[in-house]
Amino acid sequence: MVEAAKGNSERALAKLISHVEDRKNGWKDVMRAIYAETGRTCVIGVTGSPGAGKSSLVGEFAKRLADMGYTIGIIAVDPSSPFSGGAVLGDRIRMRDISTCESIFIRSMATRGMLGGLCQAARDVVRIMDFAGRDIVIIETVGVGQDEIEVVSASDYVVLVTYPGGGDSVQAIKAGVMEIADLFVVNKCDRDGADVIVSEISAMLDLSTETAEDVPPVIKVSAFTKEGIDKFMDILSEFIQKKKKGPHHQKEHVRQEVMSILETDMVNLIKERISGNGNMEKELELILSGKSDPYSVADELINRFSVIENSLKKQ
Amino acid sequence: MVEAAKGNSERALAKLISHVEDRKNGWKDVMRAIYAETGRTCVIGVTGSPGAGKSSLVGEFAKRLADMGYTIGIIAVDPSSPFSGGAVLGDRIRMRDISTCESIFIRSMATRGMLGGLCQAARDVVRIMDFAGRDIVIIETVGVGQDEIEVVSASDYVVLVTYPGGGDSVQAIKAGVMEIADLFVVNKCDRDGADVIVSEISAMLDLSTETAEDVPPVIKVSAFTKEGIDKFMDILSEFIQKKKKGPHHQKEHVRQEVMSILETDMVNLIKERISGNGNMEKELELILSGKSDPYSVADELINRFSVIENSLKKQ
Repeated sequence: MVEAAKGNSERALAKLISHVEDRKNGWKDVMRAIYAETGRTCVIGVTGSPGAGKSSLVGEFAKRLADMGYTIGIIAVDPSSPFSGGAVLGDRIRMRDISTCESIFIRSMATRGMLGGLCQAARDVVRIMDFAGRDIVIIETVGVGQDEIEVVSASDYVVLVTYPGGGDSVQAIKAGVMEIADLFVVNKCDRDGADVIVSEISAMLDLSTETAEDVPPVIKVSAFTKEGIDKFMDILSEFIQKKKKGPHHQKEHVRQEVMSILETDMVNLIKERISGNGNMEKELELILSGKSDPYSVADELINRFSVIENSLKKQ
Repeated sequence: MVEAAKGNSERALAKLISHVEDRKNGWKDVMRAIYAETGRTCVIGVTGSPGAGKSSLVGEFAKRLADMGYTIGIIAVDPSSPFSGGAVLGDRIRMRDISTCESIFIRSMATRGMLGGLCQAARDVVRIMDFAGRDIVIIETVGVGQDEIEVVSASDYVVLVTYPGGGDSVQAIKAGVMEIADLFVVNKCDRDGADVIVSEISAMLDLSTETAEDVPPVIKVSAFTKEGIDKFMDILSEFIQKKKKGPHHQKEHVRQEVMSILETDMVNLIKERISGNGNMEKELELILSGKSDPYSVADELINRFSVIENSLKKQ
């Protein structure tokens, strides 16, 4: 299966991704086996508030990168509900015209029902696409929450997309993504107010960055009229060239990844053990009857793991 | 400090919250001590995409609830950056006119630098406000990500705010909050397109809910012209009355809370131990030199915790 995925077969690639995503038998062996052959791809994260036109923009620049001869993988992250279901594909439909393009492979990811965190799952899929020889992997997120920020922050290059929309756009930006963006794109610049947003973002950046070289570019584009897309491509291409010359893996990214895998594994382990032996029921009743409280119960349960502490102290 | 907070002093309440938020000495004892006296407050979660006018709406209905004689606590969750800083207060400025109101206490919460997860921290603050005698606690989130959904899902009642804004609004809703909402509010209904959004939401709800009684109401309001606010208050009041008669703590909420505390504690424990003994550096070098990979390193590190498994099997 692993070898087949490398053979540029989309079907084999999709299968391998599902295998790892579903945490099927041997998924970790797969990830281990492919690791040495990864780190070559250039990961571009695209984020911004819903309605900013991220999908259209991604569609446009993915097509252009494909025309330039690059093979592309797109990961569309839909933070669907942890409750009753319903991942969204409406957005993806807009990408339909590029999904028939041979050198572009699209994969949707939903949070719901995912074993392990969204962030780690996205990293895994990036890695598999990397291994399969995709030159460029684009991660697009729908939301603007903490999880989404973490997902894109694992990219080599972060594009933040905003649009003129009644002054709400800058508010959305401020909600935590500004510091991780390498490029600010004001999309739908054929609408009124694009220049105002560019000024507002520039002003914010001037305030928050130390030297002039640190200031990420702010550009206006329209995925609809194609205005500014050429400039956007120039900036992207320059980055892609630079990344190619750099090291395959960066220490900070590797550190984040190890911690992320570790946390995911640990949380799953706890969940499994506690729901498995069912002894939380008794304790829940104690809480409901006022004889205990969630903090004491959590402490008690964690004390059963106290051997950890001891075993670590011995080292 | 605990007793002072109960005395309805805003200053004492703010101090107690900071103490717990910063995880200062004895914070867990505080939470334990107050638990038995909580569960009385009615927690209303308000979510929706940036720009939907959540703050204005919250401001409006908080004021009206205060006029009805209720004491209110507001928690505004800003998912600020995990990187260089910058929690947003712009939004809060809009709440300025209510912040001088004696029976309304406002608290901003940022994700950045928070020890423990956002969700657990929000729960803790709710609990402290509950203990301090606030009749109603309103949690307002800025983002629409997974974390924010978890935060509001811990509420007794979830209000989803959207607005007529170029067809983007329903897209934002679909991104995972639909299933947890008890009430859909189309704000800014003085703008064109409000009716279309109401129809779209109703259609989506018809498709996804089983019986007619399950369908949450969809109403139009304008925090600006005050249209629909009376109806909104009627629905809220009805719920508040119902909640008062119900049990203080619900089993599922308690279960979620225990798991949430446990996960937070565990993840912190791992982080502390691993960055503490610094032995991850050696392993990072192994990965960078191609001699190992993140999955193997994570496995190895987790194996040092393997005593857990054994100690649990013995039970």
